Amino acid sequence: MRLYDFTLSGNCYKVRLLLALLGHDAEVVQVDLAGGAHRHPGFLALNPRGQVPVLEDQGEVIYDSQAILVYLASRYAGTDWYPRDALNQARIAGWLSFAANEVAKGPGQARMHRLFRLPGDLQQAQQRAIQVLELLDAHLSQHSWLAEGSAPTIADISVYPYVALAGDGGLDLLPYTHLGGWLARIRTLPGYVGMPGL
Amino acid sequence: MRLYDFTLSGNCYKVRLLLALLGHDAEVVQVDLAGGAHRHPGFLALNPRGQVPVLEDQGEVIYDSQAILVYLASRYAGTDWYPRDALNQARIAGWLSFAANEVAKGPGQARMHRLFRLPGDLQQAQQRAIQVLELLDAHLSQHSWLAEGSAPTIADISVYPYVALAGDGGLDLLPYTHLGGWLARIRTLPGYVGMPGL
Repeated sequence: MRLYDFTLSGNCYKVRLLLALLGHDAEVVQVDLAGGAHRHPGFLALNPRGQVPVLEDQGEVIYDSQAILVYLASRYAGTDWYPRDALNQARIAGWLSFAANEVAKGPGQARMHRLFRLPGDLQQAQQRAIQVLELLDAHLSQHSWLAEGSAPTIADISVYPYVALAGDGGLDLLPYTHLGGWLARIRTLPGYVGMPGL
Repeated sequence: MRLYDFTLSGNCYKVRLLLALLGHDAEVVQVDLAGGAHRHPGFLALNPRGQVPVLEDQGEVIYDSQAILVYLASRYAGTDWYPRDALNQARIAGWLSFAANEVAKGPGQARMHRLFRLPGDLQQAQQRAIQVLELLDAHLSQHSWLAEGSAPTIADISVYPYVALAGDGGLDLLPYTHLGGWLARIRTLPGYVGMPGL
């Protein structure tokens, strides 16, 4: 298994975290985003979207961080991290969408603007991030894990990185106590690994 | 089955389209987005994100358009629209992410700005939309359906609406011939229904 990776990417970290929780190793290939390596033809042949992470496994290439979580959990985790019934799969899909949309546009973008000095409207991203944090805090006041079951799933892994890294975008997580409990539960999972900033 | 719906929403149309293709009916409840009905406490109790569509079925509430596609296909479509193996599920998840992120931010936002006069940077949304159309056209030059199999899946349904509606955002679909073939294949599926603008 080979992972095309960028250490500071929360999307790549999702994959590294699930691999660690599952006890799997991958050969890690660093992609030099600052140097534009993700726009080189060789990389675009792997992933036409020009994004990390990309996973190679058993002769197949899988890109998109949410897709890789689905792949790894489906192939290597039995039903622990990705239950197979319609309702659980739907709940998880809803959080994967939330990770790809609201979390990316909120805490994800706020972090990009502030940490990597990318252009954009920091204040707007922070306002969206606060909506994300409030929504998660309310949900986690009722549930231990995002998909509402008694165990963590890939829904938690997909939402965790950019929420946990919200401080990089100038946001304060302290007021969100239910969210804080969930972050702590994730950090005590057997096999948990962090990333720079966490 | 009950669908909380807004006729002009491409996300709601995804659900109406899959229901039609599966030959299922739902009681449709119109949500007055212009009047702010999606921010009323009663609606937020159904969906804390304050978005349509929302599906009620067998006592469960499912929100997020991608999640509803996963639910309907898992529960009612056998493996036709949502194959169960790891690689297919991952490919589909990658396109559901693409629908929630790139398609929403590109052709989706361009349409919002132009059709509903919502604030935002139309030119930036159109530039992102062109990247989406180019990427899809290249992919569909190699594959009949997005998930690369011989039959359509919920990946196609999730990406189709805002791409097919790109003209509403001031974009011209004519140059994208492979994409055009895919749009035509979807429109000839048994049970296909359109929406205003299509």
